[in-house]
Amino acid sequence: VTDRVRVGVIGTGSLGTRHARTVAERVPKAALVAVTDERRDVAEVAATLSPETVHVPGHPTLLSDPAIDAVVITTPNDTHVEMICAAARAGKHIFCEKPIALDLAGANAALAAVSEAGVKLQVGFQRRFDGAYRAARDKLRSGKLGEIELVVATTRDPSPPPAVYFERCGSFFADTSIHDYDVLRFLTGLEVAEVHAVAATFAVEDIGTLATLDTAVTTIRLENGALATITNSRRSNYGYDVRIEVAGSKGKVAVGEHQQSRFETLTDRGATRDFVGSYWDLFEQAYVAEIQHFVDCVANDTEPEATGHDALRALEIAVLAERSYTEGRPVAASKLR
Amino acid sequence: VTDRVRVGVIGTGSLGTRHARTVAERVPKAALVAVTDERRDVAEVAATLSPETVHVPGHPTLLSDPAIDAVVITTPNDTHVEMICAAARAGKHIFCEKPIALDLAGANAALAAVSEAGVKLQVGFQRRFDGAYRAARDKLRSGKLGEIELVVATTRDPSPPPAVYFERCGSFFADTSIHDYDVLRFLTGLEVAEVHAVAATFAVEDIGTLATLDTAVTTIRLENGALATITNSRRSNYGYDVRIEVAGSKGKVAVGEHQQSRFETLTDRGATRDFVGSYWDLFEQAYVAEIQHFVDCVANDTEPEATGHDALRALEIAVLAERSYTEGRPVAASKLR
Amino acid sequence: VTDRVRVGVIGTGSLGTRHARTVAERVPKAALVAVTDERRDVAEVAATLSPETVHVPGHPTLLSDPAIDAVVITTPNDTHVEMICAAARAGKHIFCEKPIALDLAGANAALAAVSEAGVKLQVGFQRRFDGAYRAARDKLRSGKLGEIELVVATTRDPSPPPAVYFERCGSFFADTSIHDYDVLRFLTGLEVAEVHAVAATFAVEDIGTLATLDTAVTTIRLENGALATITNSRRSNYGYDVRIEVAGSKGKVAVGEHQQSRFETLTDRGATRDFVGSYWDLFEQAYVAEIQHFVDCVANDTEPEATGHDALRALEIAVLAERSYTEGRPVAASKLR
Amino acid sequence: VTDRVRVGVIGTGSLGTRHARTVAERVPKAALVAVTDERRDVAEVAATLSPETVHVPGHPTLLSDPAIDAVVITTPNDTHVEMICAAARAGKHIFCEKPIALDLAGANAALAAVSEAGVKLQVGFQRRFDGAYRAARDKLRSGKLGEIELVVATTRDPSPPPAVYFERCGSFFADTSIHDYDVLRFLTGLEVAEVHAVAATFAVEDIGTLATLDTAVTTIRLENGALATITNSRRSNYGYDVRIEVAGSKGKVAVGEHQQSRFETLTDRGATRDFVGSYWDLFEQAYVAEIQHFVDCVANDTEPEATGHDALRALEIAVLAERSYTEGRPVAASKLR
Repeated sequence: VTDRVRVGVIGTGSLGTRHARTVAERVPKAALVAVTDERRDVAEVAATLSPETVHVPGHPTLLSDPAIDAVVITTPNDTHVEMICAAARAGKHIFCEKPIALDLAGANAALAAVSEAGVKLQVGFQRRFDGAYRAARDKLRSGKLGEIELVVATTRDPSPPPAVYFERCGSFFADTSIHDYDVLRFLTGLEVAEVHAVAATFAVEDIGTLATLDTAVTTIRLENGALATITNSRRSNYGYDVRIEVAGSKGKVAVGEHQQSRFETLTDRGATRDFVGSYWDLFEQAYVAEIQHFVDCVANDTEPEATGHDALRALEIAVLAERSYTEGRPVAASKLR
Repeated sequence: VTDRVRVGVIGTGSLGTRHARTVAERVPKAALVAVTDERRDVAEVAATLSPETVHVPGHPTLLSDPAIDAVVITTPNDTHVEMICAAARAGKHIFCEKPIALDLAGANAALAAVSEAGVKLQVGFQRRFDGAYRAARDKLRSGKLGEIELVVATTRDPSPPPAVYFERCGSFFADTSIHDYDVLRFLTGLEVAEVHAVAATFAVEDIGTLATLDTAVTTIRLENGALATITNSRRSNYGYDVRIEVAGSKGKVAVGEHQQSRFETLTDRGATRDFVGSYWDLFEQAYVAEIQHFVDCVANDTEPEATGHDALRALEIAVLAERSYTEGRPVAASKLR
Repeated sequence: VTDRVRVGVIGTGSLGTRHARTVAERVPKAALVAVTDERRDVAEVAATLSPETVHVPGHPTLLSDPAIDAVVITTPNDTHVEMICAAARAGKHIFCEKPIALDLAGANAALAAVSEAGVKLQVGFQRRFDGAYRAARDKLRSGKLGEIELVVATTRDPSPPPAVYFERCGSFFADTSIHDYDVLRFLTGLEVAEVHAVAATFAVEDIGTLATLDTAVTTIRLENGALATITNSRRSNYGYDVRIEVAGSKGKVAVGEHQQSRFETLTDRGATRDFVGSYWDLFEQAYVAEIQHFVDCVANDTEPEATGHDALRALEIAVLAERSYTEGRPVAASKLR
Repeated sequence: VTDRVRVGVIGTGSLGTRHARTVAERVPKAALVAVTDERRDVAEVAATLSPETVHVPGHPTLLSDPAIDAVVITTPNDTHVEMICAAARAGKHIFCEKPIALDLAGANAALAAVSEAGVKLQVGFQRRFDGAYRAARDKLRSGKLGEIELVVATTRDPSPPPAVYFERCGSFFADTSIHDYDVLRFLTGLEVAEVHAVAATFAVEDIGTLATLDTAVTTIRLENGALATITNSRRSNYGYDVRIEVAGSKGKVAVGEHQQSRFETLTDRGATRDFVGSYWDLFEQAYVAEIQHFVDCVANDTEPEATGHDALRALEIAVLAERSYTEGRPVAASKLR
């Protein structure tokens, strides 16, 4: 494996195992050499993905292996800062799932460690690698749709995660809405000026934190005066529903639709289609592409898209949403800086 | 009602009553002055559509009324020739439902009577008045899609009519497929060179005539060498399904889709839409427009679209399909002339 | 016309003429007997819609005619209170376009006049009469989709009205968003608890009032805790875009889609459909049905749907949005009562 | 690579290189060990797909390598029989692109060689491995849609291949329509009773063989009396258009639609979507799955789906279509046996 990028995966839950499989099977110039997880049995399963892969007991061991070039961090959200700092100190290039931190102090600490170590950091905003989103961005940047004026976006999971998830995921805004916050920046190329958020808990047991919010509307004023509204839910019932439309002064682009299946059944009870059941079904191409991009950047020593800066900016919006929700009023982005 | 076109409706079944209502309520320059039907009770109901309308006992009485300018004929198919001839002799302008006859001899007799009397004849090919079909025709005629090459069309009823209907409707080709045959000519502007038809009876009791065929495929070679295939069914289950696509050398147009409803329900069982339940739901605009057009032509002494010539041409295709089905081989259009 | 409902139309601009035509041509039990408009020439054109119709010089003359049973008010928004009060005092039943007033004092005055006179009042919330909206309401009321949790709605006009319109239309919230506010109440059966609105002016010249806002997001908390977000624009470019989705705990309904046409063109440049160009194209069925309903209510002495109470409630939401926009913070509905 | 299935690819044109890449990168239990092609430079490029891959000069050399377990044959259609026979004699398991032969004698010879050698043969009917087609098959087999009655299918390439392709591809029916013939059998589980075909040449230069037909309609009567019509074109302009609908006595399934993109642009010129540009864009999942399936069958010594029998049956339908086209009349399947 001498000329391939040697990758270790820290945290092999559902998405971590997906990323590990991508490294092992979909990125010829990478090798999946090590995996680790708090849950030993889970990591041992992931270690079978490739004959080159070993299970190691804990991330310190993994990070101390000089043969490893880069890590994928898919541990619980509340560990991301610690993991990024440790990986940076160990000189590993880093792909970390969103959010990179639960608060701005943590995010800044993580970015500082990355900067000091001179390693690369890519954050798991996979939509930036999805063909439809990239086509939408290109159309908007072409100027053919004029100045950005109005954005409507949504991300809704089919059903909520188990209760244990909420202990470590951070606020609903930082955990889920953050995808839309990032796409808003990605598609418009604009920063946020003001945020207003309302939210509620309908589908999960409320544990008294912002984590168990499960339904939210974030209204955003962008720096150019354009308006955006983002709705999120942890329980759509009808599938993984991710859509966005961006209207400019001359027209709009829309990405996503309720019905994704090419297979339809028509009887006397109506015309029925399947929807997308999971994040993987909708974004497989993008998830694979983001890992391929990360490996390319490491191999070629180039800067990744979906940077630490992007991670920080999206988290800032989440923090503004948290404050707005808590205080019951809009909060200006200038309050943060 | 002196300056309005005075219309009588002969045959007030489902579609006849629709047309009568259109005359009474949607055509200000027309008056519905008389209705008649073999079934007296049915006609009496239709006579309540407007205070100006009277029920008369039988079409001879209706036709002998000098105050009537024009008639709408929606009697059973096997009476159309007789009705057209009688109406023409009485000097009435004629709107007649398709087919104008069950065979070519009848059609020619009807056209001769119309010609001799100098009255107008419009046939009930309502799709020619539908906005989407007209847009498709205009696009094709613009030349932007190049030369016509391939046509795929379908008409499927949700469920078959009652058994009594088959005694008088003529062949399935003349009764149902004829709509597609006419639209084929309307959209392409081309005549037919050869016809091949296969058919079967699945949904209704076979009475040993071509009337109880209920599933058919007609393959047509047009005069320019382009190919067309038309499928028909008397029982789709899932709604009234009418679609056509016409491909040219530079692109294609398509009219129609399975799902017509703007209302959608999404649950964990899928995304479900309603479809169009009946001919009226799909073509209301066109049915109203064709009657308005007919009245306009009578009032302004202009020639109607959807002429007797169109009626004859479409019936010729149906007759070719009947022969092809019966003989089990393609039949050239030149055999008819 | 003795047994028909005799209707006068006050204000024969674009929509007023549509309503007048509906009365004249689509409601057999009504007669269009009089029209009036500030612009004499406009009213004279409308007076040609039916031989029974006369033009009268000004609404006082029209209202003083004892032969008129009911009026349709489609004058500029800032005259609605005056018109309703005058019509009520004259004992006429009233169909009035939305909004019934530009402020709550006006609305209350109008309702008081109606109540005192014992006449009927229906407000022009035509979406309540649209088949898709009614199907959505029925589905939501059936309980099959569970408790209401999240609503996303939009209304966007293709292009802004002329500058003169803004002098009399009231705020963008009262003029345009009010349709969504009403549909929110209609579909959910819930009242509003809190409103937050942001807005901007992109497409029209700002005259320093809330009238020339042309892009807005209204975020609403409903009385049961459910959340809603409504986006509005006076310039979509791509057509008249009206959509809503209402998500419950078990699934959702959606009404509307970008592409309404059944006609599609496919070339090497993509697959292209038309969209709906105007309010009338999208809601013709509903506009006709609401007038038919109004006439039925007058004829049968029953209470109309889309009542004065509904008009007041929707205006209250608009007033809350105005305050929120002006004050830059959410406003509780309890502040109004 | 001792425990992996060692695969050689014979013919590394567009699709052959795709398959080679799939073996190298998407099938962990397979190794791409050798490639060959008449065009040495083309094969040398493919040999770079994996460090384990070598280029060998000609298929005899490749087949004589005892370290190779299985081959993928993607050479021109007119060589398939020779390649299958040689591979079988060499004891290699075989994945061969459709059609396995250009005539029935060839197909029977190929199957006999395979049978005698006791090797596995899978044919490249990739749609059998597409999720939407499998869902459609399962729905039809469930009986919920009743007895099969009517099938409408199409396959249209965006643009024709270069002229040289026609020298070796066999008839348009055997080269293109055969995909639809196979899917017809796959979805319905029924055999063909009678075939009628019409065809034309519009888009390519006619070289006087059945190869340069480029537009065709095949009408088929199935053994249960059901009817099918299949349209094919070598030049849609608007993308790779593959659709099928199968109607039963209780309802229908449909797979495919014109517009596949999740990305849409809406301006004042309409709502525009991209379509699928190539076979790979539409069927990537299926192409990968068929190769994975083949490797699994070799590794586990199980029988592949998409068998030599299926290849023969589909070719029989193509031969019936050729005869029908040539003779200008329907041909019964019984004529072949």
